[in-house]
This record gives sequence, C-alpha cells and structure tokens, in this order.
Amino acid sequence: MSAGPTPTTEQSAVPAYLVDGPEIYRRSFAIIREEADLGHLPHDAHDLVVRMIHSCGMVDLAADTEVSPGAVAAAHAALTAGAPVLCDAAMVASGITRRFLPAGNDVLCTLHDPRVPDLAATLGTTRSAAALELWRERLDGAVVAIGNAPTALFRLLEMVEEGAGRPAVVLGLPVGFVGAMESKAALVGHPAGLEHVVVHGRRGGSAMAVGAVNALALGAAR
Amino acid sequence: MSAGPTPTTEQSAVPAYLVDGPEIYRRSFAIIREEADLGHLPHDAHDLVVRMIHSCGMVDLAADTEVSPGAVAAAHAALTAGAPVLCDAAMVASGITRRFLPAGNDVLCTLHDPRVPDLAATLGTTRSAAALELWRERLDGAVVAIGNAPTALFRLLEMVEEGAGRPAVVLGLPVGFVGAMESKAALVGHPAGLEHVVVHGRRGGSAMAVGAVNALALGAAR
Repeated sequence: MSAGPTPTTEQSAVPAYLVDGPEIYRRSFAIIREEADLGHLPHDAHDLVVRMIHSCGMVDLAADTEVSPGAVAAAHAALTAGAPVLCDAAMVASGITRRFLPAGNDVLCTLHDPRVPDLAATLGTTRSAAALELWRERLDGAVVAIGNAPTALFRLLEMVEEGAGRPAVVLGLPVGFVGAMESKAALVGHPAGLEHVVVHGRRGGSAMAVGAVNALALGAAR
Repeated sequence: MSAGPTPTTEQSAVPAYLVDGPEIYRRSFAIIREEADLGHLPHDAHDLVVRMIHSCGMVDLAADTEVSPGAVAAAHAALTAGAPVLCDAAMVASGITRRFLPAGNDVLCTLHDPRVPDLAATLGTTRSAAALELWRERLDGAVVAIGNAPTALFRLLEMVEEGAGRPAVVLGLPVGFVGAMESKAALVGHPAGLEHVVVHGRRGGSAMAVGAVNALALGAAR
C-alpha cells in the first residue's frame, strides 16, 4: 500500500458494511429467530436463548439448551428484588452490562480474592471451586453464573447440599473437555431441583454466560 | 434435602470429579490433540489452536481456523519486544492472563473511554469501530485482538489502508450473524497482507480471543 496514493473509498479493499449498532442487533436477532428451533424451550426463555446464540454465533446451540420451567421467572424476580449476580470468572463479571440490571445489582467474582489460593490448598480443590467459599453470605437467592469452571458448578451443588443456601437460579454454562458435560448433567438431575439454564455437552463459556445474564436483566427490567 | 440429615459424601448427588487444576488442563489438551485435526495449520500454530478449541469446547473449530504462515512468529516477536495487546472488548482485556505476557505488555481496550460515544456519533459508526481511533498511537507493531465486533475489524482494515500503522498480527475473531464472516474474509483477502488468525464463519468471541492471546503469550515466553 505504501507505494500508491492514499486509497479513496473506491479503491478500498474493505467491502461496504453496516455501521448502525441497533440495526446490527435487530438483524442479528431476526436471523437467529428465523434459523433457530426454540420449540422445546419454555416460551419465556426464548429471548434468553436468542441472546445466548447471539453470543456464540451458533443457532444449533438451542438443541443442547435446557431451561427449567421456572428459571426465567425466578431470575427476573430475583434480579428485580436486588439479588447479586455471582460469577465464577472475571470475564463473566466484566461482560455484564451494568445498566441492564434492574436494581443496581451487585456483580461479584471472588476468583482473584487474595484468600483464594490458600483456600484452594487447604480444601484440596481448584481455585475456581475454592472461590465459592467467599459466596456463602450472598448465595441464598442469588443469580449464579458459571461460565468457565466445571469444578465451580460441582462445588456449588455440594454447598447447596451442605445447606449453604439456595440460589434463585443457576446458569450452568461451564465449557470444556473435563467435567463440563458431567457438571451440567449433575445440576439438571440434582434432587435439590434448582432452577437452571444449561447447555449440555462441552459448549458453554463466559460470553454465553454474559449473554444469558444480560438477557435476564433486560427481561427483568421490562 | 432440608428434612433429612446433613448429607455425607456417600449420600451426595454430586459425582466424584477431578479437582487438580493442572491435571484438568493436561487431560483437556490431550483430548483436544487426540480429537482435533490440525494438519492444515502451520506447525507453530498448533498450541494456539489447541487453546482456542479449549476456550469453546469444539474440536471442529480447527476446520474453520486459518493462520497465516508468519502469524505466530510475528506475534511471539512482537510480544517479546513489548508490543501492546489492543482489544475491541473489555471482556477480552479482562481475560488475558497478565503473568503469561513476556514483557509486562500493556493490554488496552478503549471501548469504554468517555470520548467514544461522541467519536461514534461524529464518525457515523459503531462505538466498537470508533474506539479504534484511540489506538492510533499504539497500532503500529501491536497485537490486535478482535473478539467481538465485526465493525472493529472492518475499521481496522480501513485504518491500515489510510496509513495509520501496521499491526504485527491481527486475531480476527469477531462473532455473530451480521458482518462477522465478511469481516474475517476481508482480513484474509486484504492486499495489505497482514499476519492473521481467523475463524471463518459466524463463530468467534471474546473467550476465543483470550485463549489465542494467552497461547501466543505463553509461546513467546518460552
């Protein structure tokens, strides 16, 4: 490029592209609703799953997604009442759009708390799981968003069994190859009957968890 | 659960799970190397693509991934020399593991700079694209990580055409349904011949961009 003249628009190798943010969102959601099969999901979960699909670019995510019948209503009620959002990863906390939250809700991630490495060593577990020890005072009635670590989701279920509190809803979206599938199956099949949103299998992740929280926050604010 | 005794380990509905963090990583990477077909990728990009697959739980990501032959070496050299990592989204910046970076490299995201909304209005574009105006002094030789917005990747290519600088490597991983595929095709086909890592199609995202930067940082530190 350096030998030639400053390119004009006509000479640009960049194709024309849409620059209207709200219109990009509208078209994206329209494509998802056209292509995705949401029929097996609770009606009030459709907006949620559309945003989860938007976060990852895959309409077939819907087929692996399971939402318990009361999950969306429970999440809306909890968020409206000011429940905190407890996140297993800093990326999840970072991505949540604070202005969408209906009650200035706290968004907490304890993973990088300086006490966590010692807790993990003492408890003989991962830092992601040990970080949940610092959730105890906020767990009851919270919206829990697990977007990274299967061990965090397993540990959450153990803490519920131990009587540490009962979250209003659990977004079980850990990702990966070791324990992710199993932890999501454990959440769905757990006798505690927690309200849940999961993507079965290996898929999941922090962006998907953020999409889910943002959708629930927008729904609660409506 | 509340009517019964405190559950013992034997009564827990949570299955046994692996709690050794490093071992979880080792097994995950072993599964990915067993299942993923990386044959079409440059040999020095295999660690990179393994971590990108790890970030999303999908071994078939490899088939859509394209890495230019000099991209990994360019990224390693830039990071070792102290190049900044310029990110289009706060989640990308949030996820990058700072201790992996070989030279205390700056990690920058300008999206939430207070000047951006006015810039977007003045330039008639998205905030994601307008935020790149604040990259101008750092763009030349930088590692650019686009994990969210197609408009940021399109705008980057326009700025390179305008002579704003030439990044050492572009991680082109925007996600979604409007412009993502096209922006990645524009990067790969651009006559400027920028070193690049892309996932063709709709898939991408901030977690994948983080996985890519973390892999390149670890590779540079070796």
